[in-house]
Amino acid sequence: MPNPTAAMLVIGDEILSGRTRDANMHYLAGEVTKVGIDLREVRVVSDDPGAIVAAVQALSAGYDHVFTSGGIGPTHDDITAENVAAAFDRPISVRDDARAILAAHYDARGQELNAARLRMARIPDGATLIDNPISAAPGFTIENVHVMAGVPSIFQAMLASVLPQLTGGAPILSQALEIRRGEGDIAGPLSDLAERYPDLSIGSYPFIRDGCYGAQIVMRGQDGARLEAAMSELAEMFPA
Amino acid sequence: MPNPTAAMLVIGDEILSGRTRDANMHYLAGEVTKVGIDLREVRVVSDDPGAIVAAVQALSAGYDHVFTSGGIGPTHDDITAENVAAAFDRPISVRDDARAILAAHYDARGQELNAARLRMARIPDGATLIDNPISAAPGFTIENVHVMAGVPSIFQAMLASVLPQLTGGAPILSQALEIRRGEGDIAGPLSDLAERYPDLSIGSYPFIRDGCYGAQIVMRGQDGARLEAAMSELAEMFPA
Repeated sequence: MPNPTAAMLVIGDEILSGRTRDANMHYLAGEVTKVGIDLREVRVVSDDPGAIVAAVQALSAGYDHVFTSGGIGPTHDDITAENVAAAFDRPISVRDDARAILAAHYDARGQELNAARLRMARIPDGATLIDNPISAAPGFTIENVHVMAGVPSIFQAMLASVLPQLTGGAPILSQALEIRRGEGDIAGPLSDLAERYPDLSIGSYPFIRDGCYGAQIVMRGQDGARLEAAMSELAEMFPA
Repeated sequence: MPNPTAAMLVIGDEILSGRTRDANMHYLAGEVTKVGIDLREVRVVSDDPGAIVAAVQALSAGYDHVFTSGGIGPTHDDITAENVAAAFDRPISVRDDARAILAAHYDARGQELNAARLRMARIPDGATLIDNPISAAPGFTIENVHVMAGVPSIFQAMLASVLPQLTGGAPILSQALEIRRGEGDIAGPLSDLAERYPDLSIGSYPFIRDGCYGAQIVMRGQDGARLEAAMSELAEMFPA
């Protein structure tokens, strides 16, 4: 049986103007190749409705799987979701499950779920959500198209949860913990933890918020109990 | 008047399999943006005749300029030239001017212009050559499509000679000198030279050949006399 085929669609003016260097294409190419999916084509288009709709329709019809990156954030030029919906002639609106995920995320941080952020809860009818352990706002799968974020750490986390569904592999579970300390303080204990849990993939995604350093620690693995155990240890090391 | 539009076509299985990380897209995006050309779309396709022909035809019809990278080397999987020719329904064969360039290059190095290398002299009827100051084998322009090498240093040199023709800017001249010394020996004198010729762009492209270190030094600029002067100084510093 020939390998399943895939295409990627990168969406964003910032790539085409040279302001940002795309990192997701190379990552996706490596990951799908590992699991026996042939990446056959990549297209990069601008934040233009007609270009997005045409590319989604062409690639969805031409390949078994399509992965998109970019254009699902809170700003006015993030127009991927509605144009993927349009490509499949589906309505799109704020969906309760996506809204609940965002509300919980921002509540926990004392931040407002304002209109801009609520844009990220707009999901085409019939799509299934893709988990975002880094910053909550979900991606989604509609037909054979997997719509994911452009930020590389989030793109990678979303891809990790999507790929096993396509290949019939064991699903990858993930948990995240936000630690309000600099990575220099976190690195040592985290490295010890990673050594004791070699079956888990542990990533650290630093941020600066309100002038304070912090990092989102994301753990992924196939064994939920191991994930719980490691996450509990981490939480004890760094009490809130 | 709106800016001219452009698209890029990256050709090569090695990009899609994740073996090689493409560097030319980001470079091209930055360069065309600087001169007021809008890069609107990029496609990456595999070494597949049908995919190359279809992409060349679609992009050539859709945009003012098309830049391709990859697939013009000496090996059997370098099939860009014949498929760009096919896209425009033009015959392709070894052309005398391209053969003469290659013959001079390999003669000077005591290397044979064998059948594999001669493949790189195949040029579609009616195309104009694009200078390759690094490794001689030319690119070519046919209609609005500029066919260039995938190796980043060569892609960049070819682009430097093509872009001024598109924008009406002064043409960029280039000269190259091969120095059979390690870059560590070359760097100091080269840096002095670059300071005294700030109007020239001077690049160093290292290689290892027959177990010896060397570097191809490429100079580019708009003033031929200045280029000659700098090149003569360089040749005196490093006699063959």
